[in-house]
Amino acid sequence: MISERITILGSTGSIGINTLDVLRASNKFEVFALSANSNVDLLLQQCLEFNPQIAVLADESLADNFFKKLSNSDCDTELRIGENALNEIASDSAVDVVMAGIVGSAGLSSSLAAVESGKKILLANKEALVMMGSLFMQIAKKSGSIIIPIDSEHNAIFQCLPDTGLGVKDNQFKYVEKILLTASGGPFLDLPISNFKEITPDQACTHPKWKMGKKISVDSATMMNKGLEVIEAHYLFGLEADKIDVVIHPQSIIHSLVYFQDGSVLAQMANPDMRIPIAYGLGYPERLVLERKSLDLLEAKTLNFRAVDDERFPCLGLGLQALNLGGTAPVLLNAANEVAVEAFLANKIKFMSIPEIIESVMAKISCETASSLDIIRRADNSARALAKELILKGL
Amino acid sequence: MISERITILGSTGSIGINTLDVLRASNKFEVFALSANSNVDLLLQQCLEFNPQIAVLADESLADNFFKKLSNSDCDTELRIGENALNEIASDSAVDVVMAGIVGSAGLSSSLAAVESGKKILLANKEALVMMGSLFMQIAKKSGSIIIPIDSEHNAIFQCLPDTGLGVKDNQFKYVEKILLTASGGPFLDLPISNFKEITPDQACTHPKWKMGKKISVDSATMMNKGLEVIEAHYLFGLEADKIDVVIHPQSIIHSLVYFQDGSVLAQMANPDMRIPIAYGLGYPERLVLERKSLDLLEAKTLNFRAVDDERFPCLGLGLQALNLGGTAPVLLNAANEVAVEAFLANKIKFMSIPEIIESVMAKISCETASSLDIIRRADNSARALAKELILKGL
Repeated sequence: MISERITILGSTGSIGINTLDVLRASNKFEVFALSANSNVDLLLQQCLEFNPQIAVLADESLADNFFKKLSNSDCDTELRIGENALNEIASDSAVDVVMAGIVGSAGLSSSLAAVESGKKILLANKEALVMMGSLFMQIAKKSGSIIIPIDSEHNAIFQCLPDTGLGVKDNQFKYVEKILLTASGGPFLDLPISNFKEITPDQACTHPKWKMGKKISVDSATMMNKGLEVIEAHYLFGLEADKIDVVIHPQSIIHSLVYFQDGSVLAQMANPDMRIPIAYGLGYPERLVLERKSLDLLEAKTLNFRAVDDERFPCLGLGLQALNLGGTAPVLLNAANEVAVEAFLANKIKFMSIPEIIESVMAKISCETASSLDIIRRADNSARALAKELILKGL
Repeated sequence: MISERITILGSTGSIGINTLDVLRASNKFEVFALSANSNVDLLLQQCLEFNPQIAVLADESLADNFFKKLSNSDCDTELRIGENALNEIASDSAVDVVMAGIVGSAGLSSSLAAVESGKKILLANKEALVMMGSLFMQIAKKSGSIIIPIDSEHNAIFQCLPDTGLGVKDNQFKYVEKILLTASGGPFLDLPISNFKEITPDQACTHPKWKMGKKISVDSATMMNKGLEVIEAHYLFGLEADKIDVVIHPQSIIHSLVYFQDGSVLAQMANPDMRIPIAYGLGYPERLVLERKSLDLLEAKTLNFRAVDDERFPCLGLGLQALNLGGTAPVLLNAANEVAVEAFLANKIKFMSIPEIIESVMAKISCETASSLDIIRRADNSARALAKELILKGL
């Protein structure tokens, strides 16, 4: 069995943990590098188990502590620190596959480094596409990087397309009429809107179907997640906004669908388990064997579909608005959302203030063409600064 | 646009009519030949519209009548008569594609002729696989014939597999764990079993979801259809019986599913419209544009799944029994079923006698290895003779 060397960016997050769980049962991979932001204990434990060549800790303030623990262990993993080190392990010539599993704009630079160096990239970081989708896909085209989307919806779409073995390609859409992204509707699908003002971070982080990180759980509760995913799909697949629809499917069993011009629709289905799209990405273009519960439609009994209620979920509308505006609008949307969600999780703002802050930021900062990383970073910074200011002022 | 020349076997049946409807909107095909059993008027009308080189009428007794009508028309189509003529138009060197749309064992010989001559064959005739699946697939392998299944379930499975552009191939199943065929459950899914003895042919032919021919409608009402489809799937895809499951899905929107070893499941969905799998087969390996209603999941609202009730649908169990027995058992099953359904449609037997007759035939005639067409034909004849005898004797 030929071994592929893999770097896992964000190995202590939800995607990273699931990735290592899939790798544990496969002899096809050798872990080259792991990275964490601040979870020193788990990173150490992962180093002991997988013995990577390099471990990167993004938070420099924890470096001494981690280094001490690492030195006292049996592990001969080399420790590197900071964002540059992330870029190094993403682009090292020894690496075949990069799992881009860092959440938020913190994952931008390393995802880009992986694509620039022509790696096979398993893309779980949404922001690379939301913030700089157009540039990102151009760079991938030039470098020959193979992109496999890991987000369950985009992974589903990708699995339903004719495959060339080279990851996402424009020509896969030759006969596609539209795509339909499914959304669980999150924990507040049936909560009376009058109760929305009382929603707590704990409630928002308790997703009915998926176990995910806190940021993504809140995005799922506001449905901003779906707004970001529509933007992702637009750039990743090169599809116009009017060819991307969203439907609520509370059971989260159909992960998305592709409508073809001859009337056939293909759908990917699975139990809600992130190891499934991850295993697909790792095995691609083959398929690994994954031990898991088999999808049982008799147990599921019923699959339902509903339209999205715009009043309940204003964030989806904001996402579509940003997509239609184009340029740096998705950057502003994403930055304002990150700041607002963080403030909500810290009990500084109410749940319903999240869309209000985003809307204000988008109204107050004008869009530019997203033609360079500098322009994108500037837009990101301005939006964050403004969002924080709005929060401090009590909106 | 390169034109492909097509022969439609059974052009006046449900599959044939739908095929011509798809062709009407496409400029990719030239109709080489049409064939009908006895529907002289419709065949003539089709000849006038599509101007095929050859028209075949299987029922010799109607030849004079048809010939007179054809001579009096503007149409310069050549008329041929009888089963040999069917084989000729299926294997003519001028033909690129054959739609095998004849229902029942009457379609066996011409389907075989198409495959022997290495045509691209759109296989809607179940019997070629049920009665001689093993031989049929061997011959296709040897001749290089490209087989595209048109039965909606098998077409769905085929669309969910990785495609090589060469029709059904063994290597498409490398990562497949199992397949799941969906069944609408037909018109009697919720009828109290105590009312089954009163079922009339008209009731049995009124399918809730599909408009089909009478024979197939009755097969759908007894679920023998699904028994035959499991057998078809076994031979067509080279899958063992324990890798083929059946689930009832009353909405007939998911047409079947493929379970992969990594936990992903792919499903093909569409409104119940036979033009959709037909258009897929005609366009393959590309996809035609088909004007039709788009699948609307918001309108569908709910997709349900239930286990098959064996008491209600004994015919499915008989199908599985025949598959497990192997050899000529499926031939006996199919022949007894054809005779029994014909008798039911002619009001000679009750609905619930259909499985009884099949069971008796299978119990009384011993199976052989289905190693030649002669053996298969002999088994078919004995089963028919016995079924007729049982019907005459009042079982």
